Amino acid sequence: MLMSKLIGKTSKRVEEEFNIDSQRLLLRSGMFRSISPGLYAVLPQGKRVIDKLLNLLSKELEIKDFQNIIIPSNIEFERAVCLTLRNDLKSYKDLPKSIYNVSSIERKKIKVKDGILKSKSFMALRSFGFYENQQNMLDGFEQIKEIYRIIFEKIGIDVIEVKSYNDKTPIENCEEFIVTCEGGDREIFNCKGCEYRVLEEVADFHIREEDIEDMEIEPVHTPGIKTIKELEEYMNIEAEELAKTLLLKAGNETIAVVIRGNRELNLYKLSTLLNVPIEDIEMADYEDIDGKIETVPGFVGPVELEGVRIIVDREITKTGHLVTGANKRDYHLKNVRYDRDFVGDLVADVSYVRENDKCPLCGEDMTKKYGVDIGKILNIGKITDIKSMEYKNKEGKPNSIYGVSSYIDIYRLLSMIVEKQHDDDGIVWPVETAPYQVIISILNVKKEDQVDLGRRLYNELKANSIEVILDDRNERAGAKFNDADILGIPIRIVVARGASENKVEFKLRWENEKEELGVNEALERVVQLLK
Amino acid sequence: MLMSKLIGKTSKRVEEEFNIDSQRLLLRSGMFRSISPGLYAVLPQGKRVIDKLLNLLSKELEIKDFQNIIIPSNIEFERAVCLTLRNDLKSYKDLPKSIYNVSSIERKKIKVKDGILKSKSFMALRSFGFYENQQNMLDGFEQIKEIYRIIFEKIGIDVIEVKSYNDKTPIENCEEFIVTCEGGDREIFNCKGCEYRVLEEVADFHIREEDIEDMEIEPVHTPGIKTIKELEEYMNIEAEELAKTLLLKAGNETIAVVIRGNRELNLYKLSTLLNVPIEDIEMADYEDIDGKIETVPGFVGPVELEGVRIIVDREITKTGHLVTGANKRDYHLKNVRYDRDFVGDLVADVSYVRENDKCPLCGEDMTKKYGVDIGKILNIGKITDIKSMEYKNKEGKPNSIYGVSSYIDIYRLLSMIVEKQHDDDGIVWPVETAPYQVIISILNVKKEDQVDLGRRLYNELKANSIEVILDDRNERAGAKFNDADILGIPIRIVVARGASENKVEFKLRWENEKEELGVNEALERVVQLLK
Repeated sequence: MLMSKLIGKTSKRVEEEFNIDSQRLLLRSGMFRSISPGLYAVLPQGKRVIDKLLNLLSKELEIKDFQNIIIPSNIEFERAVCLTLRNDLKSYKDLPKSIYNVSSIERKKIKVKDGILKSKSFMALRSFGFYENQQNMLDGFEQIKEIYRIIFEKIGIDVIEVKSYNDKTPIENCEEFIVTCEGGDREIFNCKGCEYRVLEEVADFHIREEDIEDMEIEPVHTPGIKTIKELEEYMNIEAEELAKTLLLKAGNETIAVVIRGNRELNLYKLSTLLNVPIEDIEMADYEDIDGKIETVPGFVGPVELEGVRIIVDREITKTGHLVTGANKRDYHLKNVRYDRDFVGDLVADVSYVRENDKCPLCGEDMTKKYGVDIGKILNIGKITDIKSMEYKNKEGKPNSIYGVSSYIDIYRLLSMIVEKQHDDDGIVWPVETAPYQVIISILNVKKEDQVDLGRRLYNELKANSIEVILDDRNERAGAKFNDADILGIPIRIVVARGASENKVEFKLRWENEKEELGVNEALERVVQLLK
Repeated sequence: MLMSKLIGKTSKRVEEEFNIDSQRLLLRSGMFRSISPGLYAVLPQGKRVIDKLLNLLSKELEIKDFQNIIIPSNIEFERAVCLTLRNDLKSYKDLPKSIYNVSSIERKKIKVKDGILKSKSFMALRSFGFYENQQNMLDGFEQIKEIYRIIFEKIGIDVIEVKSYNDKTPIENCEEFIVTCEGGDREIFNCKGCEYRVLEEVADFHIREEDIEDMEIEPVHTPGIKTIKELEEYMNIEAEELAKTLLLKAGNETIAVVIRGNRELNLYKLSTLLNVPIEDIEMADYEDIDGKIETVPGFVGPVELEGVRIIVDREITKTGHLVTGANKRDYHLKNVRYDRDFVGDLVADVSYVRENDKCPLCGEDMTKKYGVDIGKILNIGKITDIKSMEYKNKEGKPNSIYGVSSYIDIYRLLSMIVEKQHDDDGIVWPVETAPYQVIISILNVKKEDQVDLGRRLYNELKANSIEVILDDRNERAGAKFNDADILGIPIRIVVARGASENKVEFKLRWENEKEELGVNEALERVVQLLK
């Protein structure tokens, strides 16, 4: 490609401010262009990088028999894939089968300061695997994870896998791929001692067993005291000595959730536990309670609470002498203890992790990091919501099919490569994903010998199937060097005065030193480096 | 690819009925699958054909310096491209520049009986060129046309270029690529004598000069006669002896259009003439007329009609003694003649072609054919509706940029290849666009020698970069032959009893004869054929 013809000029600055460095560079280098707030076009260089990423992914996927199909984007992906293939998966002989698909996706919630990471429209590679049973599905989950791991290693970015959740229908097993970086909007808890890595929303934590003195339950008169803050002051206690009881409506059911006063209720965990979508869980209102549950708002407590299912956060069961509401106006109870004074219908982890919590696996300290999620894998489990989606097993009996769904956000993957590999002057592309591998700059396009040598080199590299860009523009040397730096092409060859002696200047983007080489030597060096 | 693993089974029949043969074959061969009425997924074989078409197109486009970019689909294409590139096109040195883009597009109006041709979601390759002036734009129009012509020739379909129109903003110069076929919904007029080819909507036609006797204009009492039909009977005349005068609202203006009684008003032509979008033209209503135009609904005529711009179809000016409304209740005029009795503010072609009209260029008969439009090119003209879309010319003066936009509907292109190249047994792929070039059928997978030979051939062909599919399924011979036929793979090699003597059966999809060949001979034949 001739730089004089290339679409996508570089720029010294961009007007927009971003949370994350790479976003500025993607615009400055002319790889992306902003159309309107949150909406981006990909220019030719960006397109080349995307094609390389998709090629790497496709190759690895096809080795494992994933087949490329096109799914229209005006219907939910998982549903579309199942409807498309249900008649092709009628026998155990037809399983397993796996597909992948590359398409543009619209994002509803955008954040302008996150640039391309949260653009209105982005590109994703999605996969779906169909399996005979639970075990095969679990193997499928590991298989696609392994494929992505190979890719991440090839393109040289560190990616951590963390336990995650599904926004829509609750799913038991789901992981996200995270690249840690400042300004990222995913919060991850990492154990310092072991391999435990998890998204804040679903983070588990270690629970201390407390020594519990045997003290009698007793009512306390707390006139007009309704909030935890007021109660802390009135009774001179800490929030952790309280148990708050929340009345919620989850789907069609009213429930009470008992958690420690210093914890936040975790809706993600509760949603999975109850198998009710997050959006269907809300605070109960007067009509849900009145006449059905004998209690008084502000004084709700688990002791002798009738008419609702009681869900008890497991931390409550390890804690003694709690203060709770007494289900009676202006009264609380103290020294309440689980098992002795009340029991829950369900005991589970439904609270949020806090900064100083310890690892649930090894008890070590955990650190909190920020990152960007670039992909996700979900174990769908049995596919039950698609009509006639069934296969016959060896005995001829109909059976449900199991599914594993995944996606990689290609714009984010590209962004994270740039995020991890740039310096003050611009992008530093690794060879595998660089839009071009070599840039040749003709320093003075008015000198015939420089132009001739530059073009000769350009044609020879092209003849060797090396992707090369020739800076043939009539620009100052400084502008050419700056552009080469910001574009981040791995190998730079400058054709300058030495041209008359067939000499060129050779430099790698990630090194400071440049070398003067004979033109043939330079050619050999390029071929060797790119092998 | 092993056929046992390939996603997309063939089927003997499909439930849907289609207007066009190819649509059935695309589903039967497992290249496409129906998700819901009008919505289709593309299975792996279809995806391979699409990739080939896109490759052919990209290659040809890139030779001419068209560069591949990604444009989000939630914004109008032309607008998005201009907004994306306006800051890269600031000087005459930056022009011309051309881009192309491949993306999924949603179709609003679908027709279930047209299958993939009118699916809710389809894939298009679109291009846009930016030019300094009108002449460069016209050259750009020819350039992209020539690129598409090369592709159509390469993939072996006859495509005709016809004059067309733009649905939205009227555009002067616009052509469509049509593949003629029964059941297609585009109507084209073709001259038998010359090269004139045009869409019905914008078809011009030859106008007879009539000998006009000099007869006095005179009023006729026509009590209660309002329709053309009634008038024909009452006055015992033909519709072509009448001039009907239609009062219309075009944008904000009320106009009168005078056309011959036997012609239909052509809104496409009128829209271009007035530069008003079709959707903004409608019949005038009472409020537009009352108090502003002195006439009587049902008796409107052009003579002494005041208060509106009068647009006269050019045929009217060549015709004598017409009957028109008299702008007076229960009266018409006869022997009305253009120029003597009234004049128009504009004389133009605003009427529809009719079956027996002659060619406007050579006067020969025209025939009407049906076809499918697979693409379109539009001369946008000066781009004036995008802020700061301007370049500086050599003198440093700001100038408008000219644009040419085009698209190819990839699903339709693929469909038309199948439409033109199939027989009763299935698709007959040309080598250039076949999903695989060779199919090897192992006739009896329980015979070790057949399996061994089949696999050996398969591996050797793959090693020669030949795209090959191996039918390794445990199926009856008949089923395998049928599938090979319906898939339409150009070269079929059957490994059967001859395997013990290293012999195979060799057949081309478009020939009836099969040959027994030694395995090496067969290999050579394949390599030779695909060169």
